[in-house]
Amino acid sequence: MSANPKEFLSQTGKLSAEVVQPFTASKKIYIEGSRPDIRVPMREIEQTPTHTDNGLEQNPPITVYDTSGPYTDPSVEIDLLNGLPDVRAKWIEERGDTEQLSGPSSEFGQARESDPELAHLRFDHIRAPRKAKPGRNVSQMHYARQGIITPEMEYVAIRENNRLQELHNDPRYEKLLRQHPGQSHGANIPDEITPEFVRSEVAAGRAIIPANINHPELEPMIIGRNFRVKINTNIGNSSVTSSIEEEVEKMVWSARWGGDTLMDLSTGKNIHETREWILRNSPMPIGTVPIYQALEKVDGKAEELTWEMFRDTLIEQAEQGVDYFTIHAGVRLQHVPLTANRVTGIVSRGGSIMAKWCLAHHQENFLYTHFEDICEIMKAYDVSFSLGDGLRPGCLADANDAAQFGELETLGELTKIAWEHDVQVMIEGPGHVPLHMVKENVEKELEDCFEAPFYTLGPLVTDIAPGYDHITSGIGAANIGWYGTAMLCYVTPKEHLGLPNKQDVRDGIITYKIAAHAADLAKGFPGAQLRDNALSKARFEFRWEDQFNLGFDPEKAREFHDETMPKEAHKVAHFCSMCGPNFCSMKITQDVREYAAKQGISEQEALEKGMEEKAIEFKKGGAEIYKKA
Amino acid sequence: MSANPKEFLSQTGKLSAEVVQPFTASKKIYIEGSRPDIRVPMREIEQTPTHTDNGLEQNPPITVYDTSGPYTDPSVEIDLLNGLPDVRAKWIEERGDTEQLSGPSSEFGQARESDPELAHLRFDHIRAPRKAKPGRNVSQMHYARQGIITPEMEYVAIRENNRLQELHNDPRYEKLLRQHPGQSHGANIPDEITPEFVRSEVAAGRAIIPANINHPELEPMIIGRNFRVKINTNIGNSSVTSSIEEEVEKMVWSARWGGDTLMDLSTGKNIHETREWILRNSPMPIGTVPIYQALEKVDGKAEELTWEMFRDTLIEQAEQGVDYFTIHAGVRLQHVPLTANRVTGIVSRGGSIMAKWCLAHHQENFLYTHFEDICEIMKAYDVSFSLGDGLRPGCLADANDAAQFGELETLGELTKIAWEHDVQVMIEGPGHVPLHMVKENVEKELEDCFEAPFYTLGPLVTDIAPGYDHITSGIGAANIGWYGTAMLCYVTPKEHLGLPNKQDVRDGIITYKIAAHAADLAKGFPGAQLRDNALSKARFEFRWEDQFNLGFDPEKAREFHDETMPKEAHKVAHFCSMCGPNFCSMKITQDVREYAAKQGISEQEALEKGMEEKAIEFKKGGAEIYKKA
Repeated sequence: MSANPKEFLSQTGKLSAEVVQPFTASKKIYIEGSRPDIRVPMREIEQTPTHTDNGLEQNPPITVYDTSGPYTDPSVEIDLLNGLPDVRAKWIEERGDTEQLSGPSSEFGQARESDPELAHLRFDHIRAPRKAKPGRNVSQMHYARQGIITPEMEYVAIRENNRLQELHNDPRYEKLLRQHPGQSHGANIPDEITPEFVRSEVAAGRAIIPANINHPELEPMIIGRNFRVKINTNIGNSSVTSSIEEEVEKMVWSARWGGDTLMDLSTGKNIHETREWILRNSPMPIGTVPIYQALEKVDGKAEELTWEMFRDTLIEQAEQGVDYFTIHAGVRLQHVPLTANRVTGIVSRGGSIMAKWCLAHHQENFLYTHFEDICEIMKAYDVSFSLGDGLRPGCLADANDAAQFGELETLGELTKIAWEHDVQVMIEGPGHVPLHMVKENVEKELEDCFEAPFYTLGPLVTDIAPGYDHITSGIGAANIGWYGTAMLCYVTPKEHLGLPNKQDVRDGIITYKIAAHAADLAKGFPGAQLRDNALSKARFEFRWEDQFNLGFDPEKAREFHDETMPKEAHKVAHFCSMCGPNFCSMKITQDVREYAAKQGISEQEALEKGMEEKAIEFKKGGAEIYKKA
Repeated sequence: MSANPKEFLSQTGKLSAEVVQPFTASKKIYIEGSRPDIRVPMREIEQTPTHTDNGLEQNPPITVYDTSGPYTDPSVEIDLLNGLPDVRAKWIEERGDTEQLSGPSSEFGQARESDPELAHLRFDHIRAPRKAKPGRNVSQMHYARQGIITPEMEYVAIRENNRLQELHNDPRYEKLLRQHPGQSHGANIPDEITPEFVRSEVAAGRAIIPANINHPELEPMIIGRNFRVKINTNIGNSSVTSSIEEEVEKMVWSARWGGDTLMDLSTGKNIHETREWILRNSPMPIGTVPIYQALEKVDGKAEELTWEMFRDTLIEQAEQGVDYFTIHAGVRLQHVPLTANRVTGIVSRGGSIMAKWCLAHHQENFLYTHFEDICEIMKAYDVSFSLGDGLRPGCLADANDAAQFGELETLGELTKIAWEHDVQVMIEGPGHVPLHMVKENVEKELEDCFEAPFYTLGPLVTDIAPGYDHITSGIGAANIGWYGTAMLCYVTPKEHLGLPNKQDVRDGIITYKIAAHAADLAKGFPGAQLRDNALSKARFEFRWEDQFNLGFDPEKAREFHDETMPKEAHKVAHFCSMCGPNFCSMKITQDVREYAAKQGISEQEALEKGMEEKAIEFKKGGAEIYKKA
């Protein structure tokens, strides 16, 4: 635990180079919306030209969705002690439905603010919180249902489209934009994501934009199955290990590699202060599990939890700017005994805390009985619900059982109540599920929870690979994403074994970027295949640098390549280490292409007639053609 | 390239400890068949006892399928200079249908044998090869079709069953053997794999037992969709890098981590000698791509390949003991122009070599025109076909196209011809395929190739993650295995970038063990869930050592755990680093279990009534029960 995080964070000035340096050959661009302060960040990857017999042929830049925030924009001066620019502040103010409080209204927030012993840990520029004016509802869902398109909605529409319409009008992208039709499993993704479409999806509850009015630093994003599949990352110090500055660095690191949202699962002593540092410097929505902090306040004794102190915790965190809360209100007393015969019982921390409370008091879960009270808080700050799956299976044996599905049904009931308050909701899901039982989870969630976005942890498709659970779960995640899950909670290689370090976080994120992207491709998300096509073309043409730069992790690809062939010359060589210089399949293919061209099989012709037909034609005519030659 | 591999391999005596040491808490056991020389190796993992209020409760050992060969049996003295024991020699001899030749009958084999300059590289105890007596057919398929159950068939039956029938009669395993019913996609897996079932599957062509009569060191295994899903690993020096001793060590390393078969893809100068070392020391079936070596013989000039020299290469390798050959006989002249408009053309080395030959000669592929001649060689040694997918897609854009499926249809035609010769066949498959287009590959293969076992590379479900293609392909592999693929060819993190080192091989193998096991679970392979259940129980009970030992990679799991909590005491602690000592969900769950027990929800009762019913009962009665308390 650091004595003084400020000293560390200001000494390093900016974060270390590996955390913030822009990706090679990439530049940050901003697409402006209908007003100049809607500036949606993207990353543009430059490509090198192709060498042809007729000279150089330019390859167009590829624009990719960018979660890394201002950290990778060299023109932005980052000062962690001050936090990020308030990109949303004006939008929130303009709506005129919030007021600035004089200070925190939670007791705990007030106590932490006035404790001189915390001065060395405290972020220096804490803003007084904003709150909805009495009787007002400031949730994006509420606006959407009033027919209002907020700047946040327009922002995410631009972000999801990723310039696709512009590229469609640019002949350089014509071939690169070819894509297999998807199999959507009931998702309904339009060719162009308009602000109005975003509004209608949020209004219907099929998507959420987690965006607390006290998190103006946020670059808005959307979670819903008719949008790109998102990934969540987790960080958090625990009572056993790690410090504030480490957590801040992990947050920036998560954003860099592609985390769309981040959950702060800290359980240590200074979680209030840690959270402030993270929120003020995070371009991503931040989620928490408030019951963890509530439990800290009663020294880990679940039975001493009360609604009053939990309520104070919700307000404390909402006023700091947390964008979504995991609330385990579906763990009802009646469900608890259903877990008794499980192989691994209750594995969710939040779930087990609430189960313990229920048993100790022989009463219904107070999160369930006070659910409407919680909604009142959520809508005053626009905190979204992430309805927790406290009874998710912790092993294959317990998958899809009565406890799990009983809770899911309750979550559906709660979704309805939240929606009556126009509060945004997503639903958490498992866990550990064999591959063939994954689909049922999505189908049941969509039905029981009325298409509220599903947000799952993995699922892990086997229990027997500790040390590799990013992979066991990445398999489940790709599948569940394809079936319709909107956001995938990442799992690192350290799952079940320990706390992830930076390398583990990177491995977990890249695995989940792969899973989410595989799902986008399978669903047929418009333009999803562009980056694959561009990278494959670069691969075929031995444009090694482009191959690295277009990948999810250019640094790792370059490092691996250089292990076998470190020479710079090899990066332009028309062969690779797998086959050596005289034996390259790609090189041979180029000869085939030339041959086919000579035989008069023009590309245009093939495309017009369709490949299938062409095949038949060749089969029939083939022998003769070649006999003549 | 080493000057003298023998010096290295004898200096180290045995291989380095990390390559051969037995897994912790594991011992090698042998299950005897109907005759004492059928001794099927398995690995038995001991478990520690559970601490209960009533004292210690023993946990039974878990037996797992073991590919590691004699290397992990401390009672076997390994001498790489002599090779492994000839476990199959007697079976082959007894059949009386083969004869021992006086020496290699291939010209190349003879030349290499008599070249004094190769003495320092040459394995010292090369046996004179065996061959079928004139007119005899020594393939496992031929025996199967005669109604003969060979020792090899009995061996694989015992191996696949993995003692399941024995465990079913042992009450200690009752709960551990509970398993979700699978979704088999047309696979037809019996509850018990009998030798007769093995015979019938081999006879029908639905499974193969790759087992060259010149590879008596082999521990037989079976490849077919009604058996456990297998994985293949690749090694191979290339003209750019790596040495004989490195390749031998990689082979043993592959066996250790779970490789079921191994392809030697060497392309360097001494591949004949390298192959001998590998075969003599390999307990796994070895596959090769003979065209690679043939190309070496013509200095990389594909157009100079001839049937005569290829034939000599086949005989050379068959007499060394190669168990299966990848033969790209499906790359027909008519298919070649179909690849011209692809994004990545022909990416298979073998495919591009044959395409180049076809174009250069304006003739049909000589592997296709000489296919029956090849069959004659195969059946004289029992080499199995792995019909190569020379036109597999090298990127998503090219997936499932006319070239790929055109070749697949030809492979079906060739399968029929091979089966007329009673030659065993498996079919190679892609490649790069988006998730939603994976299934079509299996369905088409089963139909076009009459259910011959499918053997696929991945497939990779996205192109944009160089450095992580073990994961992009592991996702596809788990799915394609579930749909019915019999063997998965592994991909390492270095795919597309360089040659894998030992760590990459391990990462690739574990990823594919996960994929194959996920597929077994999804298909409902009998007993597949046992290890998951045992590990999950250990996890729930904080038996850390058992958790490590039951996993695919105990060493990695232990290492990860120790990074956060290195103290030995922590390995018996009832908490872990994720939550700390006061905050453990597993601990809380134990309270829930006690509570439920007090409420009279006996395990037996729950099981009898079924969980579903129980849930309804609790929902109805719940409120009242707890009001009374």
